[in-house]
Amino acid sequence: MRNQPIGVMDSGVGGLTVVSEIWRQLPREEILFYGDSARCPYGDRPAAEIAEFTFRALDFLVEQRVKMLVIACNTATAVCLDWARERYDIPVLGVIAPGARAAIAATTNQRVGIIGTHATISSNSYPRALHLTHRGIATVPVACPRFVSIVEQGLTASAEVLPVVADSLREFSDANIDTLILGCTHYPLLASAIGQVMGPSVTLINSAEETARDISFVLADQQMTRTHMTEPNHVFLTSGDAGAFADIGARWLGRAIAVSRHDVWECGECFDAAGG
Amino acid sequence: MRNQPIGVMDSGVGGLTVVSEIWRQLPREEILFYGDSARCPYGDRPAAEIAEFTFRALDFLVEQRVKMLVIACNTATAVCLDWARERYDIPVLGVIAPGARAAIAATTNQRVGIIGTHATISSNSYPRALHLTHRGIATVPVACPRFVSIVEQGLTASAEVLPVVADSLREFSDANIDTLILGCTHYPLLASAIGQVMGPSVTLINSAEETARDISFVLADQQMTRTHMTEPNHVFLTSGDAGAFADIGARWLGRAIAVSRHDVWECGECFDAAGG
Repeated sequence: MRNQPIGVMDSGVGGLTVVSEIWRQLPREEILFYGDSARCPYGDRPAAEIAEFTFRALDFLVEQRVKMLVIACNTATAVCLDWARERYDIPVLGVIAPGARAAIAATTNQRVGIIGTHATISSNSYPRALHLTHRGIATVPVACPRFVSIVEQGLTASAEVLPVVADSLREFSDANIDTLILGCTHYPLLASAIGQVMGPSVTLINSAEETARDISFVLADQQMTRTHMTEPNHVFLTSGDAGAFADIGARWLGRAIAVSRHDVWECGECFDAAGG
Repeated sequence: MRNQPIGVMDSGVGGLTVVSEIWRQLPREEILFYGDSARCPYGDRPAAEIAEFTFRALDFLVEQRVKMLVIACNTATAVCLDWARERYDIPVLGVIAPGARAAIAATTNQRVGIIGTHATISSNSYPRALHLTHRGIATVPVACPRFVSIVEQGLTASAEVLPVVADSLREFSDANIDTLILGCTHYPLLASAIGQVMGPSVTLINSAEETARDISFVLADQQMTRTHMTEPNHVFLTSGDAGAFADIGARWLGRAIAVSRHDVWECGECFDAAGG
């Protein structure tokens, strides 16, 4: 079991920010990634639909015998994490609690901004996670629904996106926050533009780094680290366009990745990860 | 159970670096601290003796109904963590794996130095923890047995300790490390002098911050965060001199703490945390 891959799912390419951190912090681990780009973005959909899409993807990863599930999508984490923990008998990690913990460690004025999709912001998951640990944190949540589409289109250069980013973040202009949680795994791809708008006094929290630390903790704690001496063989699947996914992936991860198209709604039985 | 304190033990005052981080990251949690200053330092003792002292202290904390044990001492973690996890039915965390994970996240040239007591260095615990996650890390371990006594004596100003620190770290002069694990909870009290000797290109890893994050993860994951609305009532016990412990504690924690003398070897039955 410990030599099985880690299953990572996202609504699209955003979860690759978590993959990047797993590669950096856990280079021996193998990843089976499923990006549901065909249905991306999840963030404006009703919760029941988000749950339907998320569990179909997670069920698929479990069928492929992954040793752990990582919901590398804030929207899906907000809606599905608690249910997923009940449904599966392997560890399930989300991206919200790690980001909240990192924000608590980073802030000095106890004023934390949160940006995310409509679904994530209206779920109130981040304020809840923050206050569970530290009741004194003041939160300023702002939905930025346009960011995911921008990233999925591959538009991440600051010059192209700066006007949209500045407009979306204008609510923070007098919020006096010193820490901003990028509460969507797509947003680190816009970190440069977000940083320009927010200025150097605001620390940006990328949940991906913290999530990888939590994965590392759970693997060590439960004696589930991979022991095979062979190089890990990562598998990337997307329900959307494989070429576009591979392009964005190569740019973000800094190395080429082989991406196959696979949609869990079209063909639940025909994928074989060993041959995929 | 979730409103019981976290039990933290150390061979002396070093574990207060972990307390400081718990206060910062988990301000709602209550702490019962036991510092075994009467037997400090542990680091030059044989493993059997370290285990005897450590388990007597941990048994005492468990009798006081703590909800979690934190072995805030690298020497005791190296010798006792695995046994302690088998012995107790509450979560037990050490300080070695968190420090190893932080070092992996910090290094860019994959060359990591480790300083610790004789017992910690000879246990090989850090290289093992590092290689479990990342086989490519080169390690340079150096024992610095004089540091703990210096800290327990309250000598932490750079001018006083710089000659001893520089002499102890001379093995690193051409080791080309970019990251140094302070593999003893006493050492962050010497961080200023260690930083001066190592220079700005070497990142110092303080396990305390990472350990507090792991505590935060486990509490949230196991639904064990404190829910009482009252201010936490921390209890500090030392088997050594309470006044000296309180002085160092106040200096390091930035606020006065009430410290009582209690030695688990003298009087196993007579301590009552509620009245202590």
